[in-house]
Amino acid sequence: MSDTPTRAQAARSVLAAKKRLGLRWDKIAEAVDRSVEWSTSALLGQQTLTADQARAAGDLLELDPATVEALTWPPDRGAEASDTTDPLVYRLTEVVQVYGSTISELVREEFGDGIVSAIDFELDLHRVEDPKGDRVVITLNGKFLPYRVW
Amino acid sequence: MSDTPTRAQAARSVLAAKKRLGLRWDKIAEAVDRSVEWSTSALLGQQTLTADQARAAGDLLELDPATVEALTWPPDRGAEASDTTDPLVYRLTEVVQVYGSTISELVREEFGDGIVSAIDFELDLHRVEDPKGDRVVITLNGKFLPYRVW
Amino acid sequence: MSDTPTRAQAARSVLAAKKRLGLRWDKIAEAVDRSVEWSTSALLGQQTLTADQARAAGDLLELDPATVEALTWPPDRGAEASDTTDPLVYRLTEVVQVYGSTISELVREEFGDGIVSAIDFELDLHRVEDPKGDRVVITLNGKFLPYRVW
Amino acid sequence: MSDTPTRAQAARSVLAAKKRLGLRWDKIAEAVDRSVEWSTSALLGQQTLTADQARAAGDLLELDPATVEALTWPPDRGAEASDTTDPLVYRLTEVVQVYGSTISELVREEFGDGIVSAIDFELDLHRVEDPKGDRVVITLNGKFLPYRVW
Amino acid sequence: MSDTPTRAQAARSVLAAKKRLGLRWDKIAEAVDRSVEWSTSALLGQQTLTADQARAAGDLLELDPATVEALTWPPDRGAEASDTTDPLVYRLTEVVQVYGSTISELVREEFGDGIVSAIDFELDLHRVEDPKGDRVVITLNGKFLPYRVW
Amino acid sequence: MSDTPTRAQAARSVLAAKKRLGLRWDKIAEAVDRSVEWSTSALLGQQTLTADQARAAGDLLELDPATVEALTWPPDRGAEASDTTDPLVYRLTEVVQVYGSTISELVREEFGDGIVSAIDFELDLHRVEDPKGDRVVITLNGKFLPYRVW
Amino acid sequence: MSDTPTRAQAARSVLAAKKRLGLRWDKIAEAVDRSVEWSTSALLGQQTLTADQARAAGDLLELDPATVEALTWPPDRGAEASDTTDPLVYRLTEVVQVYGSTISELVREEFGDGIVSAIDFELDLHRVEDPKGDRVVITLNGKFLPYRVW
Amino acid sequence: MSDTPTRAQAARSVLAAKKRLGLRWDKIAEAVDRSVEWSTSALLGQQTLTADQARAAGDLLELDPATVEALTWPPDRGAEASDTTDPLVYRLTEVVQVYGSTISELVREEFGDGIVSAIDFELDLHRVEDPKGDRVVITLNGKFLPYRVW
Amino acid sequence: MSDTPTRAQAARSVLAAKKRLGLRWDKIAEAVDRSVEWSTSALLGQQTLTADQARAAGDLLELDPATVEALTWPPDRGAEASDTTDPLVYRLTEVVQVYGSTISELVREEFGDGIVSAIDFELDLHRVEDPKGDRVVITLNGKFLPYRVW
Amino acid sequence: MSDTPTRAQAARSVLAAKKRLGLRWDKIAEAVDRSVEWSTSALLGQQTLTADQARAAGDLLELDPATVEALTWPPDRGAEASDTTDPLVYRLTEVVQVYGSTISELVREEFGDGIVSAIDFELDLHRVEDPKGDRVVITLNGKFLPYRVW
Repeated sequence: MSDTPTRAQAARSVLAAKKRLGLRWDKIAEAVDRSVEWSTSALLGQQTLTADQARAAGDLLELDPATVEALTWPPDRGAEASDTTDPLVYRLTEVVQVYGSTISELVREEFGDGIVSAIDFELDLHRVEDPKGDRVVITLNGKFLPYRVW
Repeated sequence: MSDTPTRAQAARSVLAAKKRLGLRWDKIAEAVDRSVEWSTSALLGQQTLTADQARAAGDLLELDPATVEALTWPPDRGAEASDTTDPLVYRLTEVVQVYGSTISELVREEFGDGIVSAIDFELDLHRVEDPKGDRVVITLNGKFLPYRVW
Repeated sequence: MSDTPTRAQAARSVLAAKKRLGLRWDKIAEAVDRSVEWSTSALLGQQTLTADQARAAGDLLELDPATVEALTWPPDRGAEASDTTDPLVYRLTEVVQVYGSTISELVREEFGDGIVSAIDFELDLHRVEDPKGDRVVITLNGKFLPYRVW
Repeated sequence: MSDTPTRAQAARSVLAAKKRLGLRWDKIAEAVDRSVEWSTSALLGQQTLTADQARAAGDLLELDPATVEALTWPPDRGAEASDTTDPLVYRLTEVVQVYGSTISELVREEFGDGIVSAIDFELDLHRVEDPKGDRVVITLNGKFLPYRVW
Repeated sequence: MSDTPTRAQAARSVLAAKKRLGLRWDKIAEAVDRSVEWSTSALLGQQTLTADQARAAGDLLELDPATVEALTWPPDRGAEASDTTDPLVYRLTEVVQVYGSTISELVREEFGDGIVSAIDFELDLHRVEDPKGDRVVITLNGKFLPYRVW
Repeated sequence: MSDTPTRAQAARSVLAAKKRLGLRWDKIAEAVDRSVEWSTSALLGQQTLTADQARAAGDLLELDPATVEALTWPPDRGAEASDTTDPLVYRLTEVVQVYGSTISELVREEFGDGIVSAIDFELDLHRVEDPKGDRVVITLNGKFLPYRVW
Repeated sequence: MSDTPTRAQAARSVLAAKKRLGLRWDKIAEAVDRSVEWSTSALLGQQTLTADQARAAGDLLELDPATVEALTWPPDRGAEASDTTDPLVYRLTEVVQVYGSTISELVREEFGDGIVSAIDFELDLHRVEDPKGDRVVITLNGKFLPYRVW
Repeated sequence: MSDTPTRAQAARSVLAAKKRLGLRWDKIAEAVDRSVEWSTSALLGQQTLTADQARAAGDLLELDPATVEALTWPPDRGAEASDTTDPLVYRLTEVVQVYGSTISELVREEFGDGIVSAIDFELDLHRVEDPKGDRVVITLNGKFLPYRVW
Repeated sequence: MSDTPTRAQAARSVLAAKKRLGLRWDKIAEAVDRSVEWSTSALLGQQTLTADQARAAGDLLELDPATVEALTWPPDRGAEASDTTDPLVYRLTEVVQVYGSTISELVREEFGDGIVSAIDFELDLHRVEDPKGDRVVITLNGKFLPYRVW
Repeated sequence: MSDTPTRAQAARSVLAAKKRLGLRWDKIAEAVDRSVEWSTSALLGQQTLTADQARAAGDLLELDPATVEALTWPPDRGAEASDTTDPLVYRLTEVVQVYGSTISELVREEFGDGIVSAIDFELDLHRVEDPKGDRVVITLNGKFLPYRVW
């Protein structure tokens, strides 16, 4: 087993191969046959890839078999796999800090007592051109789950 | 000055008045003449209201003058004003934890080295009907800011 | 609004009234017309009570109107509302610490990649007699939610 | 001694062998001759295996002798051996946070002053089919221990 | 209920009354009819007193009825009720830090895999005269609890 | 110097040798010519061994010279050398949490303002048979040190 | 008892009275009949004053009887009674950070395995004139305590 | 560069050489031509040594050239280079905790608003014989720096 | 003394009065006869004001005598007096995080081993007009202090 | 990819080469063709270098190709890449702590509600000679960003 890299090591190999081959994430997503956002998170170690998806990504990125194998292991979704003090990620944490109470209020008013699922969840990110400076639009789409009463 | 409530106390008065009068946030936003999301966050203490906006909200919510005055004080945007361990807010924090590296990668590929502004930023939240369970769609729209090189 | 107690203050009033009147939680649950476990958590401030449920509990516990009103406010589910260093609660935290990896493995083997919902969730607690010392049996019953792939 | 892997390293070898051989935990538990839940936690490093149990598991999983030896070392039950920020494990932590006070109240009412043992303790996990989505039922069964008065 | 002091407030009243009346803990323990150590911890808010024990202590200490009532409420055993940075208490924490691994080893060798109960537990503290300086002898007496295998 | 193991590495070698040779701590203590408790803590890295004591332990445990040398280096008594979240050690931490204020009160009443030394200190641990389950009796024996007034 | 201020409140009254009356700490120390350093720490809540010392300080500072009484209560020596992030106090913390290993080495070389007592301890602080800027000389004088071997 | 040890590794080599050669710190300080305290802290990695000082220490301690080179690199003065939970170092931290407010008061009274420099600073440590037990006298000598007003 | 507000309460009174009277900080600084930056920090509780400066500020801001008195008390410079999670202040903390190593390198190259004083220190803040968006220029001016060698 | 050093390893190679070759940062900045401050932060791992900039720095510093390659990888801007407890860096943190509220007030008064960008940001550091001791002048120049209202 000691020959199998961890998911974090596999992610670094993916990034190095992507850079060396000059590939973009949409090209990799095409091979995986899923959205760009899901495919990126999967290759960075946050989602489970099937053996077929791992093989397709491995063929495109010319990864060695042990790295392809590693991509099918369970993902690293804990706090240690993300550096929330990186300036870019911190801005998102600050959005949750500043707007968390607003989102709670509006969800509760519209749906009642419950939460927005982070599991039955989709992420979309795209560029919107703007003469005053282009914008990043990130869409969080989660199923509303009501608290069960019994 | 001891007669002026804090922004947090003003927010509790707003919530109590809203409940007593049976108002919805879109009605309050209309009085403030801004979007529902911004108006909600402003009345919850996260944005600065002008004297006119505070008066309009105060008239609708039948707030006392000291509370109206408090709404024009600087907002409480620090970490203590948001409870990130509340289950609803925690799900958003988890989204940042799980998808933070994905967002970093995709922003960097598309825009280069920089961040997504949490200041030149808009939040939108709406319901999408779905036969398998309605969904909450939260859109984060922030200007891309490139790192300055000098 | 300053006359309305917080959910935590309402919970203390409930506990004092329950003690003074010599009531048990199953009796209170009967008035609320829900399970003992849900009713207890609701009166301790962890669930939303409808106006009718609050009134029924208030009548039985002889609570004043402001406390009854407080029971219909949004619940306090954040980390501060629970003292996880209390010896009884700590034992449960330790169970998660010691058996968390086991539960992850068995859920993943049986269901695939996903989580056990803490929202679409029921709690049951009962006594099992045992000649070597009676036992507390706590059942956590949550819907399996698979990670969405898109 | 430097040839003996740690319990954490042994656990990773177990997982790799299990995957390579296509075994399920119930099959491994049969070899160990204990319940699925206990056997899983033991092989993941949370329980002490006897030399016989380790050998039986090692034979089935084709582990090398040093790994079999490692399985008989004292377990790693500290906080570092469990990642409570993993989304699946976090949901259990949140259950303790939200329902901890309810469990305290009901245990105290039924049994008096004491705790639920995490040592004289059994874990059971099984699937319950449900047309609205199958459910995970986790049963925590611990002896009640009264506080000693002297 | 707002007239009932908390356990912490009751403890302060006990300490003030004890000082004013010039009583010693052994005298108070006699009234409570339990050991000095248990009685002290109970009046400081760490144990549940029966109504009779609370009344006996209240009579001796001339406490008001609300304080006597408070002594029968559930104890405060969480981390916040103890200041482990106080120099005297810190020395005990340091003993656990320095000798924790030794105690683990010796318990495991003598008893097998398990823990020393902090619930089925007695504390004894007494003075031992010594010409080089008198000593404090603290005895921790806990039942050994073996880990259950199932 | 890179050939000298750390105290932590020496401790692991001691544990492995002890297991391989089937020795008990009292036998090792006899070689070291000190109490079982002190000898155990010394070999686990918490006390300074003289060259003679290290040699005697090394002869019995068949340790290599570099490990024997390591045993004479300064001990690791900091917080990192002890895992206080291990269930057995945690129970002792909880005893300090629950009974810390009681010990403070009784020491102050009996001795005046001061502390119980953790340096001029002896630890004793032994088994007491009990038909309801044998008990672990841990005795902490420290010199009282009064605060100096100048 | 509610009329007795805490030690922290008594300290604030001492500081206010000292300022109002234009007294210096050496004058107050004279009344207490102890060193300036000990007297200051005692009146700031870090030492136990006898009834006579409290009375003498109270007469000089014109304190009310409840404050004088409070000065005889047990001191607040925990971490919360000192703000180590205050710039002046932080510099001392930094000295321990930067020179802690040096002090350990030199004490161990000169005295053997042990510690410098913070209990059998005296503090002295005085000004030393220096043409390049006057200096503060703080002397920490603690008894060496060897680790007991048994 | 990978051949150059870190300052921490160099410090361990210094300690090993010092032990092997049976040298004392005052002898090493003589070679460095600075005080014992400064020389010790410098060789432990807390000060910058000049090339000449490093060479002189290296000659005496028979260090290899890479270690001598390492001694001239910038020091490690951050919190991670000191273990403040080591019992000896902790006692110093406790002194700051208990006497920090006293030092603040006396410095402010004598010098006005400012701090005691930890940079323009000297440390002295020596033994004072005492029939009741020898004492460690640690002198902290820092320049007073007044807050600038502009 | 209970009539004297704390420095934090005095700062809130200053802000309320400033708003009510429509004053700017440069006007207040003129009364205090110091720079805008120093005067602002002093009135917000971070510097010591002389009795004359406090009186001048009090006259302009129409503060009551107790608040004027409070302004002459020692400042609150600890971490609790500043909310570093406020978005504006956080950006400065991030600058230290991102550029701290750069500043260390450049100071060390230019000046040798030492620090930039935060005590013998001046702050300047002004607006620089820029067609692409005006800029905030913050100048930190601190005396270089070399580490003393002795 | 395992041959590519991390940004932190590349930074250590840069520092070693700079020392060996006796270069100054302004010379390196000349090769990179950017300011001294930006170039230093880039080579220490805080900015993205283009392939040309990395090559130019690599030629001057005689770095191996893998290190040159590493310099073009994304920077490490998270909290772990900076040791804020180093005395020099800590002084800057303290400046933010002491003057953060002042900066907030003055920015808000002059610009309205918003922040000072840490992204559209320039750092300048230079020496100012002063007969009382030379000074370090650090200029933080960031674009003002107003909070968007929508």
